[in-house]
Amino acid sequence: MTARALVLLLAGSSLACESPAEVDPLPSWNDGPAKTAIMDFVDRVTNTAHPDHRPEAERVAVFDNDGTLWSEQPLYFQLVYALDRVRATAEDHPEWREQEPFRTVVGGDQQALASFGTSELMQIVAATHSGMTVSEFRETSRAWLDSARHPRFDRLYRELTYQPMRELLAYLRSNGFQTWIVSGGGVEFLRTFAQEAYGIPPEQVIGSSTAAEYLSDPNAPTMVKLPEVGSFDDKGVKPVNINLHIGRRPILAFGNSDGDFEMLEHTTTGDGARLGLLLHHDDDEREWAYDRESHVGRLDRGLDEAADRGWVVVSMAQDFGTIYGH
Amino acid sequence: MTARALVLLLAGSSLACESPAEVDPLPSWNDGPAKTAIMDFVDRVTNTAHPDHRPEAERVAVFDNDGTLWSEQPLYFQLVYALDRVRATAEDHPEWREQEPFRTVVGGDQQALASFGTSELMQIVAATHSGMTVSEFRETSRAWLDSARHPRFDRLYRELTYQPMRELLAYLRSNGFQTWIVSGGGVEFLRTFAQEAYGIPPEQVIGSSTAAEYLSDPNAPTMVKLPEVGSFDDKGVKPVNINLHIGRRPILAFGNSDGDFEMLEHTTTGDGARLGLLLHHDDDEREWAYDRESHVGRLDRGLDEAADRGWVVVSMAQDFGTIYGH
Repeated sequence: MTARALVLLLAGSSLACESPAEVDPLPSWNDGPAKTAIMDFVDRVTNTAHPDHRPEAERVAVFDNDGTLWSEQPLYFQLVYALDRVRATAEDHPEWREQEPFRTVVGGDQQALASFGTSELMQIVAATHSGMTVSEFRETSRAWLDSARHPRFDRLYRELTYQPMRELLAYLRSNGFQTWIVSGGGVEFLRTFAQEAYGIPPEQVIGSSTAAEYLSDPNAPTMVKLPEVGSFDDKGVKPVNINLHIGRRPILAFGNSDGDFEMLEHTTTGDGARLGLLLHHDDDEREWAYDRESHVGRLDRGLDEAADRGWVVVSMAQDFGTIYGH
Repeated sequence: MTARALVLLLAGSSLACESPAEVDPLPSWNDGPAKTAIMDFVDRVTNTAHPDHRPEAERVAVFDNDGTLWSEQPLYFQLVYALDRVRATAEDHPEWREQEPFRTVVGGDQQALASFGTSELMQIVAATHSGMTVSEFRETSRAWLDSARHPRFDRLYRELTYQPMRELLAYLRSNGFQTWIVSGGGVEFLRTFAQEAYGIPPEQVIGSSTAAEYLSDPNAPTMVKLPEVGSFDDKGVKPVNINLHIGRRPILAFGNSDGDFEMLEHTTTGDGARLGLLLHHDDDEREWAYDRESHVGRLDRGLDEAADRGWVVVSMAQDFGTIYGH
């Protein structure tokens, strides 16, 4: 029995006067082609009588995180964390007073900070994501996630996950899917909140990573994050990491930017029923509207090719009944 | 209810005259301290009333493969595969006729071959494990595993898995454990037989890997194995990869060589109940006897320090009632 059928059955037993068809596993999704495509896909792959049926082991779904499961504007939240860490630890680094890009971060020149390119940001990430043990990094990032607030919404960053996506993850799992995160964000950072926010355990989180070194000790060995990139989990590296960690081709992929293009291509070009989805940020009122010209979460090629490739473009404005659910 | 309790219950209902205590989840293990330590550990972590109880999510068990789940003598089986591939593809590589170490492999000089060191073997592995797509590699290695036979036993290599270990894996899973492979062997090679041989799905296999590249294509993208090491999953790299892939510290680790030392240390130095095990190959009659002086699966430091660290040394001669089960 699918979980949907179970919900219908339970609903039927307690609410005898209500039609089972009214029980909706995705209540925060507005009716429309996106919701229909998702529910139709799940019905087909879980229906043993349907030619598109897949055994549970093959029901692997992969999700980008930034801009797909939570917001990413005006700056990837993990970069906000990195900038906050530079300020919080500046006293321990007197050399940063003279050294760019740290001088600008500590000095607080917002205009100069906004002009940072990849090189400056990578230096800031390296300085704040290495040179400590994995345990220390987890504690620091968890403390930040428990306290830092987004300026526009005055809410914790980790409260800016999308309720329709949380519902979708739960709906897929209740239908026998594994739900994996495959993010350009850092794997340790993601794991500090993925279980609580999304119900996704640490072993189903794939992300960017630093190299790390194990320091042996008979009583208290440690693992240290090194200032070298282990993997930058974006674009063509996403399918490579999916293969390395999962070892199967997913049958559903959900992203929102051109960094997810290869992940959707890899997912949707296999045999049998497959579903690729792109979240289009077109809701400046409740969230943000951005696509082809954005520095963060740029979506350009995906919009051009989605129709030809059979990918579903999900409109935040049209398809999301609520954004954050509060 | 634990699966063990379920087995007892089912046994009780169909075999009313048999005492439930006679149902043994590890029938290929001889009674002794190793079997007692394993079953006592599982009883404690699954018993909600016991202070050592662990929720299912934390019941992560990691296993080395070569020499722990299957044999590894006289040569790691994957090296035998690599040597066979050199011979099978020699016609496509006329340059190998003059080029060492390939000339020796093709020429069949067993004495010269036996003298190969790490450098020669790495060249042979690189040449036979890169330059093809992941799919092609899987097909080739599967075909080999379906046909190549071990000279001593005249059985398929993949039939040389240890029955007591297969029982242990199933016993742990039936008690809510995740069972992961963490091997120096290649992850793609392992995945071609891990599900069938051990009941371990591809996403719970961690191994050595080559770097790989995703080649985009709207209809048939591919992934190519490159002649660069992605990760050599041995010694201190095992805990690093455990953290990268699983993101939690295991509570049980089973290895057989000093290459597993750091994995056992990492596992057994955490809080709460933990179990480290080393399989000691001391059975020249039914398998092989080797430890401190062996080139393959050398176990030296582990034997010295096991007692102090509370690790259980499993004697193949004493503790295994059968080796392969046939």
